[in-house]
Amino acid sequence: MSNLTITAFKWVPDFAQGYVRDLRPRWACEELSLAYEERLIDVDPRPESHFAEQPWGQVPVLDDNGIKLFESGAILLHLAEKDERLMPRDAQGRASTLSWLFAAFNSIEPMVFELNEIDIFSKDEEWAKLRRTGLLDFFGQRLDRLVDALGDKPYLTGTFSVADIAMATTLRDTGDTDLIPGRPALAAYVERCLARPGFRKAHADQLAAFARNAPEPVS
Amino acid sequence: MSNLTITAFKWVPDFAQGYVRDLRPRWACEELSLAYEERLIDVDPRPESHFAEQPWGQVPVLDDNGIKLFESGAILLHLAEKDERLMPRDAQGRASTLSWLFAAFNSIEPMVFELNEIDIFSKDEEWAKLRRTGLLDFFGQRLDRLVDALGDKPYLTGTFSVADIAMATTLRDTGDTDLIPGRPALAAYVERCLARPGFRKAHADQLAAFARNAPEPVS
Repeated sequence: MSNLTITAFKWVPDFAQGYVRDLRPRWACEELSLAYEERLIDVDPRPESHFAEQPWGQVPVLDDNGIKLFESGAILLHLAEKDERLMPRDAQGRASTLSWLFAAFNSIEPMVFELNEIDIFSKDEEWAKLRRTGLLDFFGQRLDRLVDALGDKPYLTGTFSVADIAMATTLRDTGDTDLIPGRPALAAYVERCLARPGFRKAHADQLAAFARNAPEPVS
Repeated sequence: MSNLTITAFKWVPDFAQGYVRDLRPRWACEELSLAYEERLIDVDPRPESHFAEQPWGQVPVLDDNGIKLFESGAILLHLAEKDERLMPRDAQGRASTLSWLFAAFNSIEPMVFELNEIDIFSKDEEWAKLRRTGLLDFFGQRLDRLVDALGDKPYLTGTFSVADIAMATTLRDTGDTDLIPGRPALAAYVERCLARPGFRKAHADQLAAFARNAPEPVS
């Protein structure tokens, strides 16, 4: 019996498959060879009881032997604290990992949210068309700085850590833009992260759950 | 001699004074009665060497006895780990604090960034005028859920924690909108947080540094 349970959605529309954020704790669990149970809930409508566990009705939620967490960043950190393979135990190694973990969630992902709003949810809106170039410019400048910071290191802090799970899942969510392909060092970094067996297994497991629970086609 | 040094800006324009994010670690230090040194750098141009410490050239940076961190979220967490007054030591208390800490940085602050872009940096742009109502609606719905989650607790996890430093500094940065005043429970929460002596001292100290370093008026 596993003591870890990850709450995820039963099924989501195609554009979101492989990108829902339970992918992150799934990946962390794979890196540490931690078994977990899936607890799958409806996406629409969301069960009202779920809002007591996750204020915005989102996933993932983690139950670790009765201890509950929400927000994928908090869950990643909680899992990383179990094992130095996801977070070094020396003081500077830990400090750098925390810094890059928050950088992914607060300095990079907010622009991904805005980009997805423009390119997916509001793509036919006039404001989205007018805003797009400015956002891509600003985001691109920040990514140029990320390239500088990464330098020739294979991972953000030198060795693979939970910060790379956060950053790689964030960077890959930039759709058909040239943001990552246009920066070869960053493209190589993302590819290096996503080539890890832990990512591949986590991604396959998320997709498998959606396949099992796909709605009947309307004919 | 203090072993903590917080890097902040020498001076910033009026609209940003009292809102620069070194406010957060200053506040955490006050809550724990930790002395710190200020290290003040130019905002424009940013010293090029600063980008080696903070990838985007921002503040704050923390130096804790030689251990360096960037991103205000990482710095808050690092400081909170020193003392249970900012993060409970029991497993669920810690888990809830981490969850709300990341909620502030990843589920609330991204909308504050977008709002400030619309109301300050791009306020004369057509896209900003067209986008504003939709953003306020979406942000407002999320804040309604935050009201539900807060319930009648004085602080996010029951007792004051580092998550409240993150959330209160985020919520107060919503300009002249009705987002907080229109939700009395949230307005009371923010007021309760900001009434703490630690916030008042941190805020005054940030403003004092700007006053000392104000540019000469051009006459």
